Amino acid sequence: MNILKPFIKHSTFRTQQERPYNAGPALGLLCHSFITSRELFFIRNHGSVPDIDPARYRLSITGLVKKTLHLSLRDLMKLPRVTLTATLQCAGNRRQEFTAINPIPDETPWGGEAIGNAVWAGIPLRQVLLAAGVEPKAQHVVFTGDDDIIIDGRKFNYGSSISLHHALQPEVLLAYEMNDDPLTPMHGFPLRVIVPGHIGARSVKWLTNIYVQATPSTNYFQTHAYKLFPPEVQAETVDWSQGVTLGELPVNAVICRPQESQNIPAGRVWIQGYAITGGNRHVERVELSVDGGLTWTPAELQGGRRPWTWRLWQARLELRPGPHQIIVRATDSGANTQPKDIIEVWNFKGYLNNAWHRVNINVCHID
Amino acid sequence: MNILKPFIKHSTFRTQQERPYNAGPALGLLCHSFITSRELFFIRNHGSVPDIDPARYRLSITGLVKKTLHLSLRDLMKLPRVTLTATLQCAGNRRQEFTAINPIPDETPWGGEAIGNAVWAGIPLRQVLLAAGVEPKAQHVVFTGDDDIIIDGRKFNYGSSISLHHALQPEVLLAYEMNDDPLTPMHGFPLRVIVPGHIGARSVKWLTNIYVQATPSTNYFQTHAYKLFPPEVQAETVDWSQGVTLGELPVNAVICRPQESQNIPAGRVWIQGYAITGGNRHVERVELSVDGGLTWTPAELQGGRRPWTWRLWQARLELRPGPHQIIVRATDSGANTQPKDIIEVWNFKGYLNNAWHRVNINVCHID
Repeated sequence: MNILKPFIKHSTFRTQQERPYNAGPALGLLCHSFITSRELFFIRNHGSVPDIDPARYRLSITGLVKKTLHLSLRDLMKLPRVTLTATLQCAGNRRQEFTAINPIPDETPWGGEAIGNAVWAGIPLRQVLLAAGVEPKAQHVVFTGDDDIIIDGRKFNYGSSISLHHALQPEVLLAYEMNDDPLTPMHGFPLRVIVPGHIGARSVKWLTNIYVQATPSTNYFQTHAYKLFPPEVQAETVDWSQGVTLGELPVNAVICRPQESQNIPAGRVWIQGYAITGGNRHVERVELSVDGGLTWTPAELQGGRRPWTWRLWQARLELRPGPHQIIVRATDSGANTQPKDIIEVWNFKGYLNNAWHRVNINVCHID
Repeated sequence: MNILKPFIKHSTFRTQQERPYNAGPALGLLCHSFITSRELFFIRNHGSVPDIDPARYRLSITGLVKKTLHLSLRDLMKLPRVTLTATLQCAGNRRQEFTAINPIPDETPWGGEAIGNAVWAGIPLRQVLLAAGVEPKAQHVVFTGDDDIIIDGRKFNYGSSISLHHALQPEVLLAYEMNDDPLTPMHGFPLRVIVPGHIGARSVKWLTNIYVQATPSTNYFQTHAYKLFPPEVQAETVDWSQGVTLGELPVNAVICRPQESQNIPAGRVWIQGYAITGGNRHVERVELSVDGGLTWTPAELQGGRRPWTWRLWQARLELRPGPHQIIVRATDSGANTQPKDIIEVWNFKGYLNNAWHRVNINVCHID
């Protein structure tokens, strides 16, 4: 089976890497709709895209559980179906801006497009864990996917873990549908984890094994990736044990339109974009500046004050002819703000760039 | 009864205001111990300190509940006792630094001392709410204290609310003990709410009434205080309905020793302080700079990676004779950082100053 065959992508989809396949939509289209269609939803893979036969698929729940479970897709679909709207964002979203300071080799140079918001349907992970019964020593829940990853000649599956406490929160899903359709292979068919408010790397695709244990996952992508280091730490000297294991997303905002270096007719200019935050927080305020951050204009926020989803925003600015730098920043319900200078958050893996987003445009006089 | 009689305070306690009584410890003493003794624990009141007879005390749970409850202290103490270590921080902590930019009249000019960490014992609020049974329309839980507040000639009780979803989280307590002793009147005897990871204003003291309803509290301190506004909004022009209702604390760090303008002998200088964050996050990293933020030295963090409590930290810096500005900043487990410039977070009520904390010292040559 050609793995790309069932994959319908938008004509503007920009491929970052062919193998593993990593791609995302044109930024200008992303903010047109609160729900991101699967054609516009970014794709982040670390290995192959497995071709799983749904009839033969089994999900195993093993480890520190009272009763090992092996569930077919039909078993899972018999449980009450719940839906949840949640945004997934790659920890490397906006990495491209970091590379202007220092190159970040071997990592995908995403713009602001490695993000999407969908309605996921499935069952709470909690329900499966409670059915299996967790042992008193259980503290972490490890997810393993069915892809093939090869790093330094070693072949393995993608894996990641979250704490048991977190895994028991009702919003953590095992999803089999995205926007009312079955998941596509690119998005994890037949089953993936959805961990709302956290980096996308925890929302493991092609989930085949849930292992309950006392310690975090020892998978490469838990121990040697998705960790945050200060700017002075470099790849050559890193002590991986000292990194901050990434979890909740920080507050962030991105200008989707206009785009960098665009020419715009003078007058009232529409600025549009998205804002997001992590945990159970929501975005409360988005502001724009065209004077380097001296004064700010509030943007009009769409959607309600709810956790786990982005909020789209727009504002109309009066701009005189000439070059302008438009800056955006957001504040969340936990009073978190974004750092002004990108140097404050630069890190050698290029994760979680949430510095003020800046777009330079040229406003042209039209006779 | 003299309300100040049972109140034992440390000799360094600094009174900010006599009526209502607001006071806090010397900053240099605060970071000596992970657990703050009640003598050093800051006091934030909006009105009188009630003198409640424990034998006659009743807690009412009313509103959108299936069964109204009136519980004596004895009833509450019969339920299984749980303990929780949690830091309380006033939303106005570090307001003093804001006042250097613009005066903030009528608000307590706290330094970094409006914070403390204690072991609280009591019962989960959740247990009481489940015993009463909440109606389907219930969405908010309103707490009312037994103090007397007078504002603009109107007398009322302090009140505040949190969402029902939040109120049902297991870490939200009704506490009757602080550090293994009954609460003192100053700290809310006989019962107070503890809302870990959130501004202190939600941890209502002298709790006498829990009212379950469909909407947030309409108490003055919910609708006209503890809301966050952008720097350009002023007291004269504020539209209170547009403010962000404060909830989770943002990440923050404070240098407790040395203190502003202190003279220090040259050589290796110990820097000590605390760091805190909100929600279920924990502090992951604390860094110090003595070159205006160009380079940073990690501090040694004490305590583990757990939510709801501060982390004390220390570092030893080599400092040559002359003036130095020491800067501290923290990063939390949600990759949140602190804003560099205080102007970015200035607001006319002076809440949640979490800009980089700066202390100017003079290092003296000793022959």
